[in-house]
Amino acid sequence: MMMNNMDNLNIILKPGERLDELHRNDYKIIQSTNQFCFGMDAVLLSGFAKVLSGETVLDLGTGTGIIPILLEAKTPGRHFTGLEIQEESVDMAKRSVILNKLEDKIDIVYGDIKEASKIFGMASFDVVTSNPPYMNHSHGLVNPNSAKAIARHEILCTLEDVVREAAGVLKPNGRFYMVHRPFRLVDIINTCCLYKLEPKRMRLVYPYINKEPNMVLLEFVKGGGRNLLVEAPLIVYKEPGYYTEEILEIYGYNKK
Amino acid sequence: MMMNNMDNLNIILKPGERLDELHRNDYKIIQSTNQFCFGMDAVLLSGFAKVLSGETVLDLGTGTGIIPILLEAKTPGRHFTGLEIQEESVDMAKRSVILNKLEDKIDIVYGDIKEASKIFGMASFDVVTSNPPYMNHSHGLVNPNSAKAIARHEILCTLEDVVREAAGVLKPNGRFYMVHRPFRLVDIINTCCLYKLEPKRMRLVYPYINKEPNMVLLEFVKGGGRNLLVEAPLIVYKEPGYYTEEILEIYGYNKK
Repeated sequence: MMMNNMDNLNIILKPGERLDELHRNDYKIIQSTNQFCFGMDAVLLSGFAKVLSGETVLDLGTGTGIIPILLEAKTPGRHFTGLEIQEESVDMAKRSVILNKLEDKIDIVYGDIKEASKIFGMASFDVVTSNPPYMNHSHGLVNPNSAKAIARHEILCTLEDVVREAAGVLKPNGRFYMVHRPFRLVDIINTCCLYKLEPKRMRLVYPYINKEPNMVLLEFVKGGGRNLLVEAPLIVYKEPGYYTEEILEIYGYNKK
Repeated sequence: MMMNNMDNLNIILKPGERLDELHRNDYKIIQSTNQFCFGMDAVLLSGFAKVLSGETVLDLGTGTGIIPILLEAKTPGRHFTGLEIQEESVDMAKRSVILNKLEDKIDIVYGDIKEASKIFGMASFDVVTSNPPYMNHSHGLVNPNSAKAIARHEILCTLEDVVREAAGVLKPNGRFYMVHRPFRLVDIINTCCLYKLEPKRMRLVYPYINKEPNMVLLEFVKGGGRNLLVEAPLIVYKEPGYYTEEILEIYGYNKK
């Protein structure tokens, strides 16, 4: 949903950028059609993640800041940080934070996921979130330097980088939330267990009730036990073009 | 469904035993209400497992032989073996094989899962199936020697025993099918990967569309790759008391 009425905004959109409505607290987000725009993945992760009162959150690979902004709107967390390596995304995310008057609640940091525990220090956050690149075969890409390819493929960081750094910056018993593709589930579980992030809660996202899932939402606890709670299926569409009630609720569409 | 008409049977039921209809090839199975009776788990596993023409199958912990009997009815497999440690179950399973005239297709073997690769030899089967004990905390059981407790709790064998022996008796690229509880999924994946049984296909069984899954069906390939196919949800009930069409089909109820 592009907004054309810019009367009350002090933010200047750069060429190719647009402003999208987030249906939460009247928050808006700046995106660019040349870059990776947030998908349902980020929105569902913001609905799946639990952030308690007073907690601090780090989002690894925050892109335009969608996850910190949604989590700030939805949870009583104290402070949110987004780490991003693509400069254009950092720039958009910072302007979105200002636009939504969230400078006290959200920091956007320009930096590499692989350096997260050096940048922020070990055991420095209560919660870590990530919507990382899903695809592990980036060879043969037409343009591996493109912003979209970097967001989708493990070009600048691998699953293991994300998991290792999440485990590093989390406090003991801290929680890591990730959205990913079901076909990577075995890699995800093995890698997280290697870094003592124990899978505690999993929800599969099925586009339709009779289709294979195309996303998996996961909660890990640093140093937690072995029992996994698999939750009820999250079904996206009732029929083509019609979201289920639960999806409408997660998006905030039925709040109006 | 207890059958009272025993006219054409040469099999004598022992006290406490009953004969249940399997809705496949007019096969029947002897069970005892004092022992563990097969549940939906075994039926769903027999629908999930793929056995190709000419293949040989070993079922680890076969109980009354439900899985070999159903797989013989449903698949073109060449030969099926059931291994069971409880003598009363072995006795019932052997009589069920005779009753169904399957002596050429099914062997029931009395023995310990933990010895399977010694009993049958390494790399001796194309397919292994198992509906193992689910519960990993058997301490505090009122009667850990009871037949039902042995079938449900890891008293005589652990998950690792089952996985190790399955990996041992399977040929290279052989397939292992297991039904288990979702809360054990992390243990299952880690243990199987340890023994080079790679999870390739997973289906979660949800009692209702809005409920947590209570069973997970898994296919592993010995020495396979890392990508997992998570299948469409298997929903058991449309509404209380009414199975979905898919469940009716797996049970063979709508074939009549």
